[in-house]
Amino acid sequence: MDSRAIGVFDSGVGGLTVVKEILKLLPNEKIIYIGDTARVPWGTRGREVIIEFSRQLAEFLVKKGVKLIVVACHTASSVALSFLKRKIESPLFGVVEPAVEKVIELTKNGRVGIVGTPATIKSRAWERAIRRKNPDLSVFSLSCPLFVPLVEEGLFNHKVTHLLAQEYLLSFKKKGVDTLVLACTHYPLLKEVIREVMGKGVALVNPGEELAQFLKEYLVRENALSNSFNPSHRFYFTDPSFSALKIAQKFLGRKIDKIIRVRVN
Amino acid sequence: MDSRAIGVFDSGVGGLTVVKEILKLLPNEKIIYIGDTARVPWGTRGREVIIEFSRQLAEFLVKKGVKLIVVACHTASSVALSFLKRKIESPLFGVVEPAVEKVIELTKNGRVGIVGTPATIKSRAWERAIRRKNPDLSVFSLSCPLFVPLVEEGLFNHKVTHLLAQEYLLSFKKKGVDTLVLACTHYPLLKEVIREVMGKGVALVNPGEELAQFLKEYLVRENALSNSFNPSHRFYFTDPSFSALKIAQKFLGRKIDKIIRVRVN
Repeated sequence: MDSRAIGVFDSGVGGLTVVKEILKLLPNEKIIYIGDTARVPWGTRGREVIIEFSRQLAEFLVKKGVKLIVVACHTASSVALSFLKRKIESPLFGVVEPAVEKVIELTKNGRVGIVGTPATIKSRAWERAIRRKNPDLSVFSLSCPLFVPLVEEGLFNHKVTHLLAQEYLLSFKKKGVDTLVLACTHYPLLKEVIREVMGKGVALVNPGEELAQFLKEYLVRENALSNSFNPSHRFYFTDPSFSALKIAQKFLGRKIDKIIRVRVN
Repeated sequence: MDSRAIGVFDSGVGGLTVVKEILKLLPNEKIIYIGDTARVPWGTRGREVIIEFSRQLAEFLVKKGVKLIVVACHTASSVALSFLKRKIESPLFGVVEPAVEKVIELTKNGRVGIVGTPATIKSRAWERAIRRKNPDLSVFSLSCPLFVPLVEEGLFNHKVTHLLAQEYLLSFKKKGVDTLVLACTHYPLLKEVIREVMGKGVALVNPGEELAQFLKEYLVRENALSNSFNPSHRFYFTDPSFSALKIAQKFLGRKIDKIIRVRVN
């Protein structure tokens, strides 16, 4: 048993979709979340900046005494994870590795698509992780930079979202991928539009779900589950401004009592 | 004569559209620009954070020994200017005040529209500034949060941009505004789409142009023009990453030799 909290960091509120999956499988775990809403989004930033910001958030969670750290942000998982693993003492888990097995299991024709932010795609983290396990797979990657602002504006089913999804995803259809990884915390909220464009024959992978499953297995194996009854979570944001709480609740799928402002730099 | 540089700060690269206007009228002035590309955009952030970031950039420019500071960012001009004027020694000019006379001069029917970021619109800075000079005008305001990402992605003339412009601007057409202020540094790049939607009868105001005109008059009046021949400008960014230089040159309308990374927090 280990009643210390699970630390989760993200560039903003998107990581709450990952927290949602974690709490579905691990309802007794206490979460300490930090979202960098004063500097979101990270997906269009350079590598150095993403690493610096990631390290600040990870160090914040270490100071809070968490038992492990989940890097919920895909951009940070793709760009900064190996750096963080060298610098941070806590066990650290990103959203890429746990989903790779699922991708390999799902694809029938060996043609896999990855959609993510520009920085995630540029890092080639998914290609490398998938091909390390199975070099025979063909991996096609594409950044969809407008998906994040569309989700943050709540345009989940807007005509504009459909148009852009058709445009972005056309190349995957042409390449005949049968498995598509939603490699950004915001994209699961566009699942319906993406499914409509790609067709029902294409499997969609939400790495947040795989991470939650992985985490459960890890905590069982390490005998580190918490047995708290009705644990109280804490949500820190670097900018708890007018829209953060509303969007945060939408992403988490439950009410948040309060959000706490914190400075990390 | 005063050969010190003009300092310009912005949340990112958008302020370069303002620099472009300044250099058209004042080609002998040297510019020191700082864009906070590691933390852009500001328009969806809270007031406290916008003030804190603005102060950091203004202080950076003061240390560089500039003769005055232009707050090119509309969000910062609307939210942080009065705070900065109390804290910073240098003369400071935002993009709101210089454009107000122009708005009053242009409107025939007294119905004016303002489009800007959520934080600019929420601040009501434009309403207050316009109605202080002419309380009889009707001012209608609207935030267009997706215009910034559309411009940053270069979708100046995309179907999606047209669709969103039609949707955003419909209320202004219904209200019969005859003058529309493009109160965000990115929006002048959508001028053609906005003109098409609003019709030729509606005057579009680019506050960057008015700021440049105001600045010229100010420097003449203060006898503080520079007489440098072919001055060399300096462009600092908090994240000089893969896309910054390309977008920066597009916004400035000329080549930038190099961009310099700087930390401000």
